[in-house]
Amino acid sequence: MAIPAVTEQLNGSKIDIARQVVTKARSGHLLLFRDIFAEEPAKAELVPFLEAEHSGQLTEETSRPPRLARVQYDKIGDDGSHAYTESVVDVTAQHEVLHRVVEKDVQPPLTFAEFKRFQDACIASPMWKEAIEQFELPDGFAVCIDPWPYGGPDPGETIPRYTQGLCFARDTRKGEHSNHYGYPLPIIPVMDTHSSKLVRIDKLATGGTEDALEYNTHPKNVLDHCTSAEYVPELLSIDLRKDLKPLNVVQPEGPSFKVTDESLIEWQKWRFRIGFNPREGATLHDIHYDGRSIMYRLSLSEMTVPYGDPRPPFHRKQAFDFGDGGAGRAANNLSLGCDCLGVIKYFDAVVADTEGKPSVSKNVVCLHEQDAGIGWKHTNFRNNRAVVTRSRELVVQFVVTLANYEYVFAYRFDQAAGLTVETRATGIVSVVHIDKNKTSPWGNVVSPGTLAQNHQHLFALRLDPAIDGHRNTIFKEETLPLPMSPSANPHGNGYRVVSEPITTSSFLDASPFTNLTIKLSNPHILNSISRKPISYQFTPSPSQLLLADPKSTQAARARFATHHVWITKYRDGELFAAGEFTNQSYSERGGVADAVARNDDVGDADVVVWNVFGLTHNPRVEDWPVMPVEKHELHIRPADFFERNPALDVPGQMNEASVSVDGDGGKKEDADCCNGEGGKVQESAETHWQGTRDVVPNRVVNGDRNGDGNGVNGH
Amino acid sequence: MAIPAVTEQLNGSKIDIARQVVTKARSGHLLLFRDIFAEEPAKAELVPFLEAEHSGQLTEETSRPPRLARVQYDKIGDDGSHAYTESVVDVTAQHEVLHRVVEKDVQPPLTFAEFKRFQDACIASPMWKEAIEQFELPDGFAVCIDPWPYGGPDPGETIPRYTQGLCFARDTRKGEHSNHYGYPLPIIPVMDTHSSKLVRIDKLATGGTEDALEYNTHPKNVLDHCTSAEYVPELLSIDLRKDLKPLNVVQPEGPSFKVTDESLIEWQKWRFRIGFNPREGATLHDIHYDGRSIMYRLSLSEMTVPYGDPRPPFHRKQAFDFGDGGAGRAANNLSLGCDCLGVIKYFDAVVADTEGKPSVSKNVVCLHEQDAGIGWKHTNFRNNRAVVTRSRELVVQFVVTLANYEYVFAYRFDQAAGLTVETRATGIVSVVHIDKNKTSPWGNVVSPGTLAQNHQHLFALRLDPAIDGHRNTIFKEETLPLPMSPSANPHGNGYRVVSEPITTSSFLDASPFTNLTIKLSNPHILNSISRKPISYQFTPSPSQLLLADPKSTQAARARFATHHVWITKYRDGELFAAGEFTNQSYSERGGVADAVARNDDVGDADVVVWNVFGLTHNPRVEDWPVMPVEKHELHIRPADFFERNPALDVPGQMNEASVSVDGDGGKKEDADCCNGEGGKVQESAETHWQGTRDVVPNRVVNGDRNGDGNGVNGH
Repeated sequence: MAIPAVTEQLNGSKIDIARQVVTKARSGHLLLFRDIFAEEPAKAELVPFLEAEHSGQLTEETSRPPRLARVQYDKIGDDGSHAYTESVVDVTAQHEVLHRVVEKDVQPPLTFAEFKRFQDACIASPMWKEAIEQFELPDGFAVCIDPWPYGGPDPGETIPRYTQGLCFARDTRKGEHSNHYGYPLPIIPVMDTHSSKLVRIDKLATGGTEDALEYNTHPKNVLDHCTSAEYVPELLSIDLRKDLKPLNVVQPEGPSFKVTDESLIEWQKWRFRIGFNPREGATLHDIHYDGRSIMYRLSLSEMTVPYGDPRPPFHRKQAFDFGDGGAGRAANNLSLGCDCLGVIKYFDAVVADTEGKPSVSKNVVCLHEQDAGIGWKHTNFRNNRAVVTRSRELVVQFVVTLANYEYVFAYRFDQAAGLTVETRATGIVSVVHIDKNKTSPWGNVVSPGTLAQNHQHLFALRLDPAIDGHRNTIFKEETLPLPMSPSANPHGNGYRVVSEPITTSSFLDASPFTNLTIKLSNPHILNSISRKPISYQFTPSPSQLLLADPKSTQAARARFATHHVWITKYRDGELFAAGEFTNQSYSERGGVADAVARNDDVGDADVVVWNVFGLTHNPRVEDWPVMPVEKHELHIRPADFFERNPALDVPGQMNEASVSVDGDGGKKEDADCCNGEGGKVQESAETHWQGTRDVVPNRVVNGDRNGDGNGVNGH
Repeated sequence: MAIPAVTEQLNGSKIDIARQVVTKARSGHLLLFRDIFAEEPAKAELVPFLEAEHSGQLTEETSRPPRLARVQYDKIGDDGSHAYTESVVDVTAQHEVLHRVVEKDVQPPLTFAEFKRFQDACIASPMWKEAIEQFELPDGFAVCIDPWPYGGPDPGETIPRYTQGLCFARDTRKGEHSNHYGYPLPIIPVMDTHSSKLVRIDKLATGGTEDALEYNTHPKNVLDHCTSAEYVPELLSIDLRKDLKPLNVVQPEGPSFKVTDESLIEWQKWRFRIGFNPREGATLHDIHYDGRSIMYRLSLSEMTVPYGDPRPPFHRKQAFDFGDGGAGRAANNLSLGCDCLGVIKYFDAVVADTEGKPSVSKNVVCLHEQDAGIGWKHTNFRNNRAVVTRSRELVVQFVVTLANYEYVFAYRFDQAAGLTVETRATGIVSVVHIDKNKTSPWGNVVSPGTLAQNHQHLFALRLDPAIDGHRNTIFKEETLPLPMSPSANPHGNGYRVVSEPITTSSFLDASPFTNLTIKLSNPHILNSISRKPISYQFTPSPSQLLLADPKSTQAARARFATHHVWITKYRDGELFAAGEFTNQSYSERGGVADAVARNDDVGDADVVVWNVFGLTHNPRVEDWPVMPVEKHELHIRPADFFERNPALDVPGQMNEASVSVDGDGGKKEDADCCNGEGGKVQESAETHWQGTRDVVPNRVVNGDRNGDGNGVNGH
């Protein structure tokens, strides 16, 4: 029986209720709303409900967790002060169940409202006029500013809420789509976010390898050696390719997936619910395969992008794209036939504005199937009988834009009960000004006058496993050499596999040379064949961790980025690897490092695993003006969870739509393939066999036709 | 002007000529032919010819390298002795240009002729009858034997050419397609390959964790606790999935590639030639992008699969699938709509039999295009203008079967001038017998009585770069922390990139924590923008290297598998990482380790780079009976080779065939997407903007329509 989920988004009317309840509770105060979204139920309340659902005992009478809304807002004082406040509202009972005035020394995420005030605040400021007068911009160029989070304040610096701006110039003669990033200006204005007053303008270094860190002299006509960096087709000076012919993904019988009550997704033995929130974007809940529980929750938790240019104030270029901005807030409205192919189901987001009014953001998540090549294959060399299946995947995808940069996130489910978390980095690399004809150790000159600074992307993925239940144990498994010895390893070819349970909350690092594998296990259930605990496993990518000096503010703010795997005890609401508040943070608080420091017992417990992976991005000229995707995949696969290849029952049907062509693309007879020519293949195969050639022809495609195994059937 | 390639395969008539020339030259001798295939020209002869071709100066008069055939055969003596011999024949001049009787202490690859003799040789042997009588097979079961290379002889063991056999039983009542691997027998017969006489039968250990290495007692009814392991659809006891709906790749205008004179492939600015030979399978030659040279030759060079079970004689389970068998010899004849989708061009192989007679093996390589998701994307947050392109790839794929196991090899070309070498491991894991209810430290019980032994797959890829010319330098580039210091790194966020040329032939290992990148550079040409040498680069996968003890025969035979990267000076014919002869080798001879030991000067030289990557495979129950593919990718990408993103000119056209559906798969109006609803998206976007929401809607899909940037256009 399908029931409304309790992890799904709030609809508009529930957002209205939440707003009204809070407005009433805070009556007499001016409120600036930041976000209103579903507050997930406590696990202790949700689990019994889910168990009832899975055991088919769910009825309308089943007691269910309250439907909650988290409301984030500023209480504006008469003096114009902002008191960041959060409420949790029971939208069914229509009353406030939690009210929290957040401590003053943390900053909630930036909003676009704040972004938008930046440009006007600058233009209104005499300080800005003075700074701009030091430049002589080419005719037709206008300054435009990308607001950024302020980053980490310097040690001892106590400041209110700040925003900083990266400045560029746009060639207005080319219209609003012209790419301003090709014309960087060497200043960074800093704004008091609440008062919208400019507090100072930092002057940026413009030198190269030969210059001191603080070198920042430049001619008045600073942009004269810069060139355009267009990527919008109508502004390109190069012709678009004309020789790319259409490739269509066609699903004549529709998709193989089913979506019910907006958030329940079923496909090829997979069953899970999808959520969406302003910070994490799409989240996955209650993931089951073939009726068995695998994960309680799976989400992208945080990402930090520290820049490696030591010249002040670039040390403050360190974004936390989930905590400072929000993957959900930045989610693109996806376009059919552009962001994915085939038959697509889109999901919308219901969002609230600064007055707490709901509206719909269309197509923020897409769901579709894709072909992933050969899934499994074997050919019996005795009779050339080949059985081959294709791998079909279900993809949950969303794309986020953070000023200059883009990320494509995808959760991919496969038919062998595997799950892949894919991230793609694209968009425009962050650039600063560099003097004519100089090069720099801190980045790569990707366009004249334009230095793409070296940086890292460090992601945290949060896995809340429920391997056939919620009491799980994490094992660290390594493959190690075994010294040659007459008794234990007489010929030296033997090696050993060593597995060790993790019983106290802790961190560990990837170790590819010992083949380190993380096993999410349920020691209460042994695989009936191997006698090993049923498990899912992943191999943490040995990507480079945070390069910043451990004593640096960058490192203090991103302790999560200093290890590949964190293992913590579950706590409601503990979702964010770098802590709840990252914007303008001095250090990471309430993140995975603090959670690990609790020294919780995580053996045979409700345990959470955090995987950190990253990309050290020293830009190539090929990354300009928009970079080709750089991809990372984490594969989460069953290990003795099932009693055979879960994809064994995938039919090996021949795809009738495929065609064979000769060199110049002319279509050949279909009979040239599996049927007619198939016979010839067979003959030629026989020829080989009589000729005792060791070619392995696949006489038969799938189980529906018989191969006659004369020739070399060994028995 | 298209001209016959000189790297392409020989056709049937040229093979006939080669056979005839050799037969005449060896007249009076009985010859057993092993292979006849194209001998590639010396690089010094081919390069000027290719340069003439690329500069358009090629005429019929242009002197060209001779067209050569390599003929591999045994000269059978009156005493039945086999003298392995090789000839190189100029098939145009029709004379032998090289004749070499290969030293006696090496063994050429196994042939199927030898494989096929194995079963008969066993059955004819009293030794076998006696061994088999110790077993009481279930009714209807017949023994069948998988011939294997003998592996490495023990130190001091001098032996003729041997073959060993892994023994199983097949349930004949289920027909010839029943999977015998579920019923392993604990014996390994060893055959003198030439005399076809059984020399001994090794008795195998059948014990578990609690038993000594040599434990090998078992009941007479040894197979009674084993169960069937069927994978052929009509023999499955489980139902096939019925809920997978067709997904078709349709290319109404045909493919975007062009194939001329059988081996010249052109696609999206890529231009290269394809070769095929019995040992390496598909090889790529003279790879260009947009008229610029990138590689002279790219090939899979070798793979070894050592098993980690220390119990004798399992230390001799170590296959060299290219050198002992041959990827080309084992290539599957691919089936339309099964091994790839869309519009496919197949390539055949021309092969010779034991009499040297040519025949055609159909469809051993397929060429097709595939969609690889978003290629690059950027959304201008000021006006929501999104430009998104898809990534199209060209795939050259072949699949090999080596007894129980399969590999899928693919060379994937993309539109950003990147090249990915993809390997997929699938097929049936190698199993041996284990007593009832026992488990083992040497593998995983994947089916009752069936132990899948732990093993590794170690591959070697050979890259012969020609980065805008043949004088290249290899750089080792690492990204390293920079200590915090007032002058050099005041805030500790800075890091440095250190690059070092490799001037002497050498090896090095992957180093993910220093972000080690290998750059293939041409220091004679600087990128006009970054001022850095034009390069291609790859990051060696930090996969676990050979685990066998350095003193072991396994290690001696596979020195190539002890480092991730080998850098050697080019030599004609030096193509094989583990040396020319691997079958039954005592140690690696003439492989990469010996090439490096020459201490050649490889700076600004004709240099070759070998990349070793692998997979430590400790089997899961899910890998049984046929394992889901396990994938590895190596990405080879330009780094300052071009002056912008090479995919910038890829049109961002909307795919008109994609459709949007609601939850239950019902098709929605197409107008629900980029056009009609697009407008609504726009409105809802505006709603957000007025509401100052920080959602980023993509109003515009591509350059053909205009986005109006009112709302939050910052300037």
